[in-house]
Amino acid sequence: MFHRPLITLTTDFGYEDPFAGVMKGVIYTINPQAIIVDLTHSITPQNIQEAAFTIGMNYQYFPKDSVHLVVVDPEVGSGRRPLLMVADEHYFIGPDNGVFSYLYKNAERDLKVIHITSEHLFLRKDSPTFQGRDVFSPCAGWLSTGLDVNKFGEEVSDYHAIDLPSPVRVNDLVLQGEIIFTDRFGNAVTNIKKADMAELQGMQPGGALRVFLKGRDMQLSSYYSQAENMGISALINSSGYLEIFIFRDSAASKYDIRPGDVVKVVFSS
Amino acid sequence: MFHRPLITLTTDFGYEDPFAGVMKGVIYTINPQAIIVDLTHSITPQNIQEAAFTIGMNYQYFPKDSVHLVVVDPEVGSGRRPLLMVADEHYFIGPDNGVFSYLYKNAERDLKVIHITSEHLFLRKDSPTFQGRDVFSPCAGWLSTGLDVNKFGEEVSDYHAIDLPSPVRVNDLVLQGEIIFTDRFGNAVTNIKKADMAELQGMQPGGALRVFLKGRDMQLSSYYSQAENMGISALINSSGYLEIFIFRDSAASKYDIRPGDVVKVVFSS
Amino acid sequence: MFHRPLITLTTDFGYEDPFAGVMKGVIYTINPQAIIVDLTHSITPQNIQEAAFTIGMNYQYFPKDSVHLVVVDPEVGSGRRPLLMVADEHYFIGPDNGVFSYLYKNAERDLKVIHITSEHLFLRKDSPTFQGRDVFSPCAGWLSTGLDVNKFGEEVSDYHAIDLPSPVRVNDLVLQGEIIFTDRFGNAVTNIKKADMAELQGMQPGGALRVFLKGRDMQLSSYYSQAENMGISALINSSGYLEIFIFRDSAASKYDIRPGDVVKVVFSS
Repeated sequence: MFHRPLITLTTDFGYEDPFAGVMKGVIYTINPQAIIVDLTHSITPQNIQEAAFTIGMNYQYFPKDSVHLVVVDPEVGSGRRPLLMVADEHYFIGPDNGVFSYLYKNAERDLKVIHITSEHLFLRKDSPTFQGRDVFSPCAGWLSTGLDVNKFGEEVSDYHAIDLPSPVRVNDLVLQGEIIFTDRFGNAVTNIKKADMAELQGMQPGGALRVFLKGRDMQLSSYYSQAENMGISALINSSGYLEIFIFRDSAASKYDIRPGDVVKVVFSS
Repeated sequence: MFHRPLITLTTDFGYEDPFAGVMKGVIYTINPQAIIVDLTHSITPQNIQEAAFTIGMNYQYFPKDSVHLVVVDPEVGSGRRPLLMVADEHYFIGPDNGVFSYLYKNAERDLKVIHITSEHLFLRKDSPTFQGRDVFSPCAGWLSTGLDVNKFGEEVSDYHAIDLPSPVRVNDLVLQGEIIFTDRFGNAVTNIKKADMAELQGMQPGGALRVFLKGRDMQLSSYYSQAENMGISALINSSGYLEIFIFRDSAASKYDIRPGDVVKVVFSS
Repeated sequence: MFHRPLITLTTDFGYEDPFAGVMKGVIYTINPQAIIVDLTHSITPQNIQEAAFTIGMNYQYFPKDSVHLVVVDPEVGSGRRPLLMVADEHYFIGPDNGVFSYLYKNAERDLKVIHITSEHLFLRKDSPTFQGRDVFSPCAGWLSTGLDVNKFGEEVSDYHAIDLPSPVRVNDLVLQGEIIFTDRFGNAVTNIKKADMAELQGMQPGGALRVFLKGRDMQLSSYYSQAENMGISALINSSGYLEIFIFRDSAASKYDIRPGDVVKVVFSS
């Protein structure tokens, strides 16, 4: 089934503490053939929406049959269920708190969601505070050895999804979205997709799109350095989303841009 | 002897500089079959006690026969000795400055401590400033290829241990310990073990334990979200130690909790 | 050609965003046998000189035939060329913006620089904003599978180099250099090599060298702890460069030392 299986980690554990390293120890103890890749451990602590966007927008750059572990889990130790999900020929393991909501909404093929109940796979059954180590990592390890998904538990359909903000068509000429996160360079990513913008433009051929944020009016560039000396600008980023930036500067810092800030795309003929 | 041997790294080198990456280059040059895992590179610079707790509380989550490299080494280049230690079917390599003190005190099986003198294994013999690269990494690489521990040098018994703070029984009803470190979430870990608390309670059956820190009086929870809306609280964490926390907030920031702060556990009938 | 090929990553992407993890996903999709090592992702954003020093001073600690990916690329999406370089039996992949300037100047054997034009190797041909993922990572992946360098494009000689600051002999007794970067410990590394200093001393046998920075006069130590209680000091570091430090303290913070600050080495008989 698997050939040097790949496991990614997406957590809010940070890089300072040994939590992520310990999860890798547990996985390699079960499967020394695994390749483990840190997608990120810098999810804002307990921010389920950020985790959902991060895994949903990036899993497709990994090989088919990869196992994606997502551990952002403020309710750890309570009754919330551990899940194993199959979507788009990838595997996902994490808590039933909405971290897979982007995938529930967008995954190309049919989802299969399993409530993990096979406690004999766990490192500890009575794990109230670190299920990343005691529940999710061992399950990822066993799954990567080729253990059948049906050995983990029963399929469920009442999994918990969170509402991810979607852009709204205000009228024929205006699309309204919001900032969903900012990156290390101070670039601010919106929830507006290239396709959303193409649709707006497609209905009104012959005009141009402009982008508005916090009273600023921006033009669209194709790449960052094209906006040299142009101040705050916008482009479609490498994930296919509208992004606000300043060339060689931090738009987020300079204009105090934060998740939730309103962004408008306006068609002008 | 070894099957895809695993090497962990625990240092105060941080993630910004290329030091940890260079150590991996040296190890992989010697043994391309190794698996290398960062336990952490964020030990507070030159904090030997923090390094001792970190490796001592986490090595057991890695496979037997793992090699654990610990490089927190303010005296690098001076006369302090490089050591190779065997304990509990794991291997440890690092400077003779006390970084293995937790293991000297707690390792379940007999220790074997070797003073590394086989300089032909080193990358450079005249290495005054970066023995992580020139001495410890090559030794870890060679050990992971299966080289016998007796080829590294002679056994010694006069290795250097530091005093790690232990909790003290003030009287039949009171146990006093201290904060040993805080994590990314602002949770503050004490040196008081679950067994220490069970002993206190066992002597006085029928009552409850309360935790005191900086004039605050806390109840014990089983897991984090159980203390929702309860402010500062305590639980036994995933390593078996008493930990102070606030659900979805940073106890360390809010109450300025630091290593060394006194914590008391009091039995009330 | 390759045996478990090793690929290093040097970028300004940081550890917070999933960029580096996604690059690894792309590489492992092409070559699951690769070993990927983070040299650093903490190059100061868009600082080409820092990237040039970092890869140039560290590649030699990795096995021969390693592939070194360097992605510090403010002009991504513009006309600047992607390059594949062979030097000293190592491979280097990155943008033609000067990130390999240290190697152009210092590599021991003949360089071969190829302009990568084989777009069929790319993940996407129309990649304006994330060529680390879409261009450089796939090329590193294919190269690590053993694909011949001549399959990537044609050799060029008009590659872009930047001026890296070199120390200057002010007169027979004085050598002037500058700080090129500071590390996590607050140690400040200069561009003055051990050989430069030996030459100064060799011309005037029998005297001693002193180091001056920001009006401070320093002695040379052999290793850090030798300068205990001596305040700001200097030594030849593990890369063979003059370095300014304070034992167990941060010289960079205490004296506000920054890249570009002038350092003088003076011979006194």
